[in-house]
Amino acid sequence: MNQLQEIGERAVIAKIETAKLSTIQKNKVLKDAAAALEANTDEILAANRQDVEDAHANGIREVMIDRLTLTEDRIRGMANGLRKVASLDDPIGAVGPMKKRPNGLLIGRMTVPIGVVGVIYEARPNVTSDVFGLCFKTGNTAILRGGSDAIRSNQAIVKILREALNENHITEDALQLITDTTHESAKAFMHMNQYVDLLIPRGSARLIRTVVEEATVPVIETGSGNCHVYVDASADIDMAVNIIFNAKTQRVSVCNAEESLVVHRDVARALLPALEKKLNEKKVELRADERAGAYLENYTPATEADWGTEYLDYILSIKTVDTLDEAITHINRYNTGHSECIVTRDYENAQRFLREIDAACVYVNASTRFTDGEEFGFGAEIGISTQKLHARGPMGLEALTTYKYIIYGDGQIRQ
Amino acid sequence: MNQLQEIGERAVIAKIETAKLSTIQKNKVLKDAAAALEANTDEILAANRQDVEDAHANGIREVMIDRLTLTEDRIRGMANGLRKVASLDDPIGAVGPMKKRPNGLLIGRMTVPIGVVGVIYEARPNVTSDVFGLCFKTGNTAILRGGSDAIRSNQAIVKILREALNENHITEDALQLITDTTHESAKAFMHMNQYVDLLIPRGSARLIRTVVEEATVPVIETGSGNCHVYVDASADIDMAVNIIFNAKTQRVSVCNAEESLVVHRDVARALLPALEKKLNEKKVELRADERAGAYLENYTPATEADWGTEYLDYILSIKTVDTLDEAITHINRYNTGHSECIVTRDYENAQRFLREIDAACVYVNASTRFTDGEEFGFGAEIGISTQKLHARGPMGLEALTTYKYIIYGDGQIRQ
Repeated sequence: MNQLQEIGERAVIAKIETAKLSTIQKNKVLKDAAAALEANTDEILAANRQDVEDAHANGIREVMIDRLTLTEDRIRGMANGLRKVASLDDPIGAVGPMKKRPNGLLIGRMTVPIGVVGVIYEARPNVTSDVFGLCFKTGNTAILRGGSDAIRSNQAIVKILREALNENHITEDALQLITDTTHESAKAFMHMNQYVDLLIPRGSARLIRTVVEEATVPVIETGSGNCHVYVDASADIDMAVNIIFNAKTQRVSVCNAEESLVVHRDVARALLPALEKKLNEKKVELRADERAGAYLENYTPATEADWGTEYLDYILSIKTVDTLDEAITHINRYNTGHSECIVTRDYENAQRFLREIDAACVYVNASTRFTDGEEFGFGAEIGISTQKLHARGPMGLEALTTYKYIIYGDGQIRQ
Repeated sequence: MNQLQEIGERAVIAKIETAKLSTIQKNKVLKDAAAALEANTDEILAANRQDVEDAHANGIREVMIDRLTLTEDRIRGMANGLRKVASLDDPIGAVGPMKKRPNGLLIGRMTVPIGVVGVIYEARPNVTSDVFGLCFKTGNTAILRGGSDAIRSNQAIVKILREALNENHITEDALQLITDTTHESAKAFMHMNQYVDLLIPRGSARLIRTVVEEATVPVIETGSGNCHVYVDASADIDMAVNIIFNAKTQRVSVCNAEESLVVHRDVARALLPALEKKLNEKKVELRADERAGAYLENYTPATEADWGTEYLDYILSIKTVDTLDEAITHINRYNTGHSECIVTRDYENAQRFLREIDAACVYVNASTRFTDGEEFGFGAEIGISTQKLHARGPMGLEALTTYKYIIYGDGQIRQ
């Protein structure tokens, strides 16, 4: 039996135990684990230093090394993340409204764990404890497969978390780490349908695409955001400028940042000069079509490729449209199913945009930056789903659960 | 461009139109399509006769030919199925409770179509119109890939359904049939992630396994049922006999039929002789462990293989246990995530069974045969999901929908 099979076998045994844990037991483990991470900061930092040294030696890019590097502060952040999850409501075991059938059967849905949740990620060691917290709180057993660059850090963190489980007399296999970080092991992980109920890739667009294309285990795609703000003919110009400035520049490297402005021709003259002035504060590069360019002082002509690009940078593409229909068609063609916004004062156009745009989150008169588990009131987030099955948009604890039907009878048989 | 790509391209254009249709438009198409199927019965029967002749010539098994064969009655059944779906509530466009955030944003979930739904099935031509009805009512665009044995029947049915769309000025591409029935085309269909949002296999366990193992498009597994009835020490014996007789014999070939009895040792003596007598009415073969056999007149010793077998026949395996814990462990080991039942008068054991059994439907004191969309009050069913993601248990129209978050703002930006 290879390592993966053994991990799989252990996980399917462990999930029976984790599914049965009480909320009190789970919260105690999470708080103990948080304290243990802090108490063992030196051990984690020592392991992390080795990873970082190797990464330098291997010529890894600075931005990746920054993500890989742990500090006392970051470890405290991981611990506080676990405490936060402990403070959230436990969704497991709740039963929704029960329906009484004509034959007297009482039928309802009980929220239950998914079972074994696999997570594939890159060299961010903090993901290790974040994912454990969310999976454990929801009664799931977690199998993690982090990047090879973070292997020593991940081993140190997982060891501490497993000790917290063990001290609470709960199976350590509630959390397992795949230490074989070869490409073959990742590939095999994506095909462990017998053991793994759900696989979540977290990381770069390339990692996510690979998992989606390769895996036969059910996957939730957390993905890229080519987000648009459409400024309708009737928009309040000040509001539009504020929303675009916020959605574009408040944090450019995130998936809910705006990448493209779609502007109705009737409002281009009023909007674009004011907007350009504001965006100049952050030196945003504009890539505009010709009609929009007529109202701009500085811009690069946009090409077809711009409409489909998630810049994650201080760049904004600008497309002019003649009608709301054209805006909707353009956005539905190029958006990645993440977050889209209309700025308008027109009732009917607002409703049509909400109905007809195909994306996880559709906004009227608000920044796309609100697409986030915290902002939606979920308390925590395992990612933002850009696919349509099971969970869409920001995923909180609920996304890590499923349901079963429970049926109370008194001897009913089918006629 | 090959046929599949072209079908995919057409589907992603069509789904924008089908998602926008009003309930009135959709219901009219469904009723018109029902009338058209009846009006063109001769044409469908002629195509079907050719399929059946070929099937005979190809030495197809009788039971398969029975499923393939259409009659005037079966076509009327297909038409009435479409009328039934027309009569159901349309879930699309509904918005659940909206949450008001501290910053004034109003956030809610709107029910929307999944988009392009692919269905792979075998030689049952009635599935063609059933699937169209359910997908169309939920605003989805359907791509169907039936078995090669039914190709002429499917082409005739699809032609009539597409004419009904066309007469209502709705894109015919709301329904497309893949006519290339080679193995290669099925395989390519399972990897059309760019075009297909959801793939549902309907048919034999082998077909379903192939799709689950091969597909990279998200799949909902509708599957086999190795269903158990557990008779607890405190059970009412008459009730237990009635439920087992119903669950085992009312219809043996279906996935929600009982395949295995798990009996507490303290009730074996009271239950088994009475049960054997009742099951003899239907000549049910018993495959029992030794302890159960002591109370039976006729039985075959059960082997390990029996615990994992879905007989779909007049056969019942019988396992004796010493405790509820042992029953739960046994059932969680061998069940296929379908339907499980406890017969008991004990409050605590009933609650534990409901909580701890891992299956789509868990019953107290009722036959497993109730696991069915009609019986659950859904009005129609596209299948019974035995996986945990997106939909579990009987799937009605709701399972063919997803949601998007809609957010009403008045200029909010993120701090």
